[in-house]
Amino acid sequence: MTQAIHEAWKYQGLTYPNPAVGCCIVGAKGELLAINAHQKAGKPHAEVLALQDAYVKLTNDFKILNFTNSFEIHNYLLANHNNCFENIFLYTTLEPCSHIGKTPSCASLISNLKIKKVFVGSLDFNEEASQGNKKLLDSGVEVENCLMQNECNKLLEPFLQWKKSNFIFFKWAQRLNATIDDGIISSTQSRKNLHGMRSVCDLIVIGGNTVRMDRPTLDARLVDGKAPDVLIFSRQKEFDTTIPLFHVANRKVFIADNLSLCHDYKNIMIEGSAKMFELTKEIVDYYLCYIAPTFGGSHGFENVNAKFDILNLHQDEIDIIMWMKRIDKNDE
Amino acid sequence: MTQAIHEAWKYQGLTYPNPAVGCCIVGAKGELLAINAHQKAGKPHAEVLALQDAYVKLTNDFKILNFTNSFEIHNYLLANHNNCFENIFLYTTLEPCSHIGKTPSCASLISNLKIKKVFVGSLDFNEEASQGNKKLLDSGVEVENCLMQNECNKLLEPFLQWKKSNFIFFKWAQRLNATIDDGIISSTQSRKNLHGMRSVCDLIVIGGNTVRMDRPTLDARLVDGKAPDVLIFSRQKEFDTTIPLFHVANRKVFIADNLSLCHDYKNIMIEGSAKMFELTKEIVDYYLCYIAPTFGGSHGFENVNAKFDILNLHQDEIDIIMWMKRIDKNDE
Repeated sequence: MTQAIHEAWKYQGLTYPNPAVGCCIVGAKGELLAINAHQKAGKPHAEVLALQDAYVKLTNDFKILNFTNSFEIHNYLLANHNNCFENIFLYTTLEPCSHIGKTPSCASLISNLKIKKVFVGSLDFNEEASQGNKKLLDSGVEVENCLMQNECNKLLEPFLQWKKSNFIFFKWAQRLNATIDDGIISSTQSRKNLHGMRSVCDLIVIGGNTVRMDRPTLDARLVDGKAPDVLIFSRQKEFDTTIPLFHVANRKVFIADNLSLCHDYKNIMIEGSAKMFELTKEIVDYYLCYIAPTFGGSHGFENVNAKFDILNLHQDEIDIIMWMKRIDKNDE
Repeated sequence: MTQAIHEAWKYQGLTYPNPAVGCCIVGAKGELLAINAHQKAGKPHAEVLALQDAYVKLTNDFKILNFTNSFEIHNYLLANHNNCFENIFLYTTLEPCSHIGKTPSCASLISNLKIKKVFVGSLDFNEEASQGNKKLLDSGVEVENCLMQNECNKLLEPFLQWKKSNFIFFKWAQRLNATIDDGIISSTQSRKNLHGMRSVCDLIVIGGNTVRMDRPTLDARLVDGKAPDVLIFSRQKEFDTTIPLFHVANRKVFIADNLSLCHDYKNIMIEGSAKMFELTKEIVDYYLCYIAPTFGGSHGFENVNAKFDILNLHQDEIDIIMWMKRIDKNDE
């Protein structure tokens, strides 16, 4: 389950409006057959991708790898599994879905493949998709619930926030010596990851100073994605309209001295420096930090105090990518 | 092998004068039976600890866990293995030793247990211990060499430096916003890890300013370890002798305006800030950075430029511990 959780975190921020979910498949002797995660809404669920990988390991039938569409993978598995999953265990961070949406139900698939036992982290709070466990149990699959539930619930928190109101994360990229000025900081890989997140955000909030200094575009060009709307959080009403962010197609730009616009959006990224960090601390759910393993630049997060819990940490080729929750706010 | 390497890095800096070595044991179906690492000179080698864990998994005989001494574990395994390792694979980051030193030879043990196949990362450059592979092959164990050799060699570099001359690493602890002032930064766990490293260092090099400002002790009290000698690198010859580092038993303190004393020591830790970082860049092999997930303090590594390759990254309860190599020096 630890590995399923870690894999899922790699796609946190990219799966909106779906939750980040990871899945591991393990053989009768405990051998690891597959680790995979849900990567993007509309693409296969974590369980389907992991079952696809495990099927190849168990059968050496590589033909299934020609399919990327969830329906096709489902159908191929159902037609060809030949009971190869009979003694197999499946670990998933979230209860398998029971509804047919953009993809067929994972609970049905798992039942039909006659998986021996399913370990579930978080129970599904989404009423449309839930009752997956019931479907599994009804078909004779063993189910163990709530394995590493706390860790799985942290992974699920953005999704639960989307359902309830909205999810707001504060993102910054820094060097190891915590500077954020003086040109491009992050690796191409990290910037693609960030653009992927932007392409599923509906609003970016940014401070007026950063807009004036950096003259950013704030789009998702590195992944050919849709650019989110922008809220410039500033008391100043006028900005130099030659700044690139004003010239992105299909985008609205707002300027306001308050954050009430956030109520109208679901998945919100705040970009900024120490001042924005302080001003937004009451509304931010998670923090996302990219660290480039370099020294350079001059200015960064000065005169701020905070304490974080690291939710997940991984290295993406060059940079460190880290999701955190602040643990020094008064309400906690 | 990836997991064996990662496990070994957790003990990098603690195994002097032995190399950091990791070992994984995998069953016939590919199931992971054990991951372990050499933790400290005089304690069992990585292979012995991993074989001990794997034996428990294979036999459910927990009695072997009563033994912590390498001879006892060897003897228990030899007397009780009952060919349970016949279809088992062993991955080790370094060629198993063939000599009987503080512990019996791992190559003999592996041969006697009739392990099916051994995957080796780095070949042993230590003439005393080498020829482990030959011993394995002579007894009919299959051997595959040089698996992930580059990564394993990076793990081995401190050991090779000790053999050749000395290994010098630059250590610092910072907050996420790169400050290094204003009291204790690291978690208790990280500081214990650091004290463990100090207890096997023979020299700490520190700048005169840091000595005056921080008034450090620079001992290994958190692990009841031996305190290394200290070189204060400073043009000033006189220091306030009430500073605690001058009052540690069995320690020599030197004050010099050059680093030539380093030639007389094998395992050297440099502690300091930006100035020391610049002054020592030509002699440092590896960099070790502890990052506390907090914001605070005021000053850190200002006005420095550097680019690192992250060799290993892991989180130790709270803090991030990161070994790095500098990749922007002129000679590379």
